[in-house]
Formats: sequence, structure tokens, C-alpha cells
Amino acid sequence: MQKLDGRKTSAEIKDEIREEVNSLRSSGKRVPHLAAILVGEDGGSITYVNAKVKACDYVGFDSTLIKFNDEISEEELLSKVHELNEDPSIDGFIVQLPLPKHIDEKKVTLAINPSKDVDGFHPENIGRMSLGLPAFLPATPNGIMELLKRYQIDPEGKHCVIIGRSSIVGTPMSLLLSRNKKGANATVSLCHSRTKNLKEMCLQADILIAAIGKPYFLKADMVKEGAVVIDVGTSRLPDSSKKSGYKLAGDVAFDEVSEKCSFITPVPGGVGPMTIASLLQNTLLANKRSADNA
Amino acid sequence: MQKLDGRKTSAEIKDEIREEVNSLRSSGKRVPHLAAILVGEDGGSITYVNAKVKACDYVGFDSTLIKFNDEISEEELLSKVHELNEDPSIDGFIVQLPLPKHIDEKKVTLAINPSKDVDGFHPENIGRMSLGLPAFLPATPNGIMELLKRYQIDPEGKHCVIIGRSSIVGTPMSLLLSRNKKGANATVSLCHSRTKNLKEMCLQADILIAAIGKPYFLKADMVKEGAVVIDVGTSRLPDSSKKSGYKLAGDVAFDEVSEKCSFITPVPGGVGPMTIASLLQNTLLANKRSADNA
Repeated sequence: MQKLDGRKTSAEIKDEIREEVNSLRSSGKRVPHLAAILVGEDGGSITYVNAKVKACDYVGFDSTLIKFNDEISEEELLSKVHELNEDPSIDGFIVQLPLPKHIDEKKVTLAINPSKDVDGFHPENIGRMSLGLPAFLPATPNGIMELLKRYQIDPEGKHCVIIGRSSIVGTPMSLLLSRNKKGANATVSLCHSRTKNLKEMCLQADILIAAIGKPYFLKADMVKEGAVVIDVGTSRLPDSSKKSGYKLAGDVAFDEVSEKCSFITPVPGGVGPMTIASLLQNTLLANKRSADNA
Repeated sequence: MQKLDGRKTSAEIKDEIREEVNSLRSSGKRVPHLAAILVGEDGGSITYVNAKVKACDYVGFDSTLIKFNDEISEEELLSKVHELNEDPSIDGFIVQLPLPKHIDEKKVTLAINPSKDVDGFHPENIGRMSLGLPAFLPATPNGIMELLKRYQIDPEGKHCVIIGRSSIVGTPMSLLLSRNKKGANATVSLCHSRTKNLKEMCLQADILIAAIGKPYFLKADMVKEGAVVIDVGTSRLPDSSKKSGYKLAGDVAFDEVSEKCSFITPVPGGVGPMTIASLLQNTLLANKRSADNA
């Protein structure tokens, strides 16, 4: 078994981006600028957004962090989105999810200008991806594609089984893996809460992707010998031995599954860092496409 | 084995639409108006477009058929698309595919105003469908969903295997079937030319959808006893016994497969008429959504 080291791979990608940013700067061009909107005090959201800002600093992007308390109205949030849509100094921006319950996440996602949607959540980007047109690819699924590529795991002709059909991971993952494209071309099965024969489906997988948010759900008896296992789960479980008071738990029972599979992503240090690398790649792309920097 | 009679089901839907159009008319509202652009002399395209116009007549829609010879430039075609986008008397329109090789089909598809894209091919509609937002659903996949519904075949929890990943049938079909929605909720496997174990995959299918355009490709030994079989193929094979000189061939070897399955769509008379019914449903929806008719 080999660990798919998302931290190391993400660091390599960040170094590549940093070089590109240096050459942009030395040729007198504007460097990429990412803005992030954070609403409320959700612990996970704060950690993720801080990690994104830190990554921007590392690669030499400008970044702007905009914080609101969780009493902000939907209208105020949408007004900030429109402001960022119009601001020519911002190449791309994200609204960290989840949002408080009184705000309609879909409405906010739809309000983001697709050409600044570096999370790749807007329907126009999802649709363009599905048709094989240039698009901002959703950060987590694309981070997984990149991780596979850099470990020379070619999905072509392989049976990929995805557990979970969320609109930000499972469903776009199924589209990316099944596309008629080098590095994709997989046979894809999309499973979820209504799937009746989940174990049977999982046991067929050459590449198995767990994205349901249930700690340690995927056990060794659901995994074929030699499979590649990708763990997208990041649940927080109380852990008094940690300074933070919690530990991150993946969807995979790592200890038992790792004895059976060929490759596996750890949690933390697997998919998470790749998501951030992917966000930086999208922001760099947005910058290159922007009218004033072309 | 029971035949899934697309002709009969489509006729029922057309009668329902006709009633709705009558009540629109009697309440003084504008009736739906579909325009179709046909380029060149492709036999299949002419047949399909004529069938669509005839269906409009039947249900009481206005229709406009715009014909160009196959020497039309991309620019001229795009200019007609823009004109229809702006024309408030047109609720929806289609550009019949395929187009001559010198015209970029994707460019034309992208030029259509998503709110008049009653074929459901525009990335914005595909993306909205994928996110479960209101959208014009692609006509063929949605016609298949409707056929299943009217025969009370509920895909929930079933394993649906789709052969073919085209952007107008296979890929959107996988999205529609796997959605978290009543009448969907299937476990979906998307297979294609790079799939290595196609027979093994097909033999697992509770619902098997063939959409590859290879006459009689799907044989009985690829079908599980009692499966539901949907045949999207419509290849034209020379046949001197027919007045037209050809016969329509599906992707399924009907005679042998029909002995094994529970339900099957014939070709012709299965999926084809449902596609037209779906197009009419989308056009009616576009009309209801239009500003002057709400």
C-alpha cells in the first residue's frame, strides 16, 4: 500500500504556481487576487478559509478575506457578491459553505459571475464541464483528478465507484471521471443513500471514492484487493488528547482498508490539500483570462 | 415482456398539452411558438424536424421552420440564432443537429439563449439540472424518464446501466436518473467505448439504456432476466422492401432481447416519439415562463 500524499503533491503544485506568479510579476502583469467571504463562526469554515488565505500568501497571490457575522441578511450578502463580480481587481472569489440557514446557498451560488467562480460551483461551469468545454472545474473533484495524475494512476477503462452524489463532490466527480479525455475515460458508478447493493458495487471498484461524510463508513470488507481508495470525508470528532479538542475523521476505516488496497489517501493530508491547490489553479486561470492581463 | 409504447404515451402527453393550449387560448393568452432551424438535406434531420412541426400543429402551437442550404456560413447561422433569441414572439427554438462540418456545433449551442433552449443542450441548463434547479431538461433523457413514470417503473434504488456517454443522451441521462428526487434515485453506471467489462456491467442492470448508435449491438447474453431495456438507437439501414429505401435499426437485438426482459422500447415507436413530447413540454414551459404570458 502506498499513501497518496496530498500535502506533498499540493506543495509541488503550489511551488509551480509560485514560479508562474513570479514570472507574471516580473513581466509587469497583475498577480492573481482571490477574495473569500466567510459568514459566521463555524470552526471548519474558519480553518478552511484561513488555509486558503495562507496558501495565497505562499504562492504570491493577493487575497482579501471578508468576514460577516451570521446575522447578515441574504440581501447584504448578495450585494457583496455583486460588488466582487464587478470589481476588476478581483480575479476570483469564493463564498465558504455552509451558510446560515436563513440564507439560500443556491441563490448565492447562482449570483456569482461564472467567470469568477473559482470554486466551480456555478451551473454554467458544471454544464460546461459536462460538455467538455473550458470551465472552472470544481475544486475537490479536480484536486482528486490531479492527485491520480501525479501518481500515474490512469482511470481509463477502470471501474470507478463513487459513494455520495453531492453537487460539489460526488456528481461532478462522476462527470470528470467519465469524460472522453486523456486521464479520464473511466466507467463510473454513482452510489448513494438509496443504493441497495452498496457493498457489492464497492467490491467491483478499481478506484473507490468515498464522499458521504460518515466517519469510518467504508470497511475492509467493502474493498477489492488492490483497489485505489480516495477518502473525501472530513468529519470532526471530539478528541480530548488534541489541543484543538477534535480530530478529523475520514469516511474510510483507514487501518483495515489500507492493508487491502494499493493506494489510499490519508485524512488529513489527502484530498483536503488538493482542494486548495485546485482553487489556486482556478484563480491563476481566471487571472490569465481576465481582459486586463491577457 | 411488455412493450413500452412511446407512440401511445407520446399521444397521451400531446393530448394533455393540447388541452392546456386550448385553455391558454380561451383565457386570451399567447399560445406557445416553437421555431426550428434546419440546415442541409440530411434525411434523418428532415424527418425529425417535420415530425416536430407536425406535433406542434397537433397540439395547437405556432411553429416556424427555417431552412438553410448546407453552404450557410457559421456567421449567418449565428446571426439567425441571435435574431430568434431576441424575438419575443418565439418561446423556444431548436437547431437540428448534426450541422455541416464547417460549422462549430458547440458554438451554435452556446449562442442559444438558455431561456429559449427547449432542447436542453445549453451548459446552463445541463448545469442547473445537475444541481437540481429548475431547467429545460434534455429532450431525449427526459422523454425516457417520462416513459418510465407512465409505466410505473420506479428507478429508485435500481441499478441503471447506460451505454454511451454523449452530451445529449448518455451523460444527461446519468444525471437525471441519479438525482435525489422522486422518480429518480437510481444507482447509475455510465459505460462507453473504453469500458473493459461491458457485458459484466450490463448483466447487472435492472434498467439498461443503450445509446451508442450501433445497430443490434445489445444481445440477449448481455441482459439480465427481467430487466427493463430502453433502446435509444435510430440507425438507418438500407432496405429495398421499404418505400423509403431504409429501415430504422435500434441498438438492441430486439427479437432475442425481448424474450428475456420485462419491458422494452421498440424502434421505431419507443424513445423517438417521447423525445418530441418532451420538446413540446419544454416549449409549453418556456411559454408559461415568458414575461408577457405569465
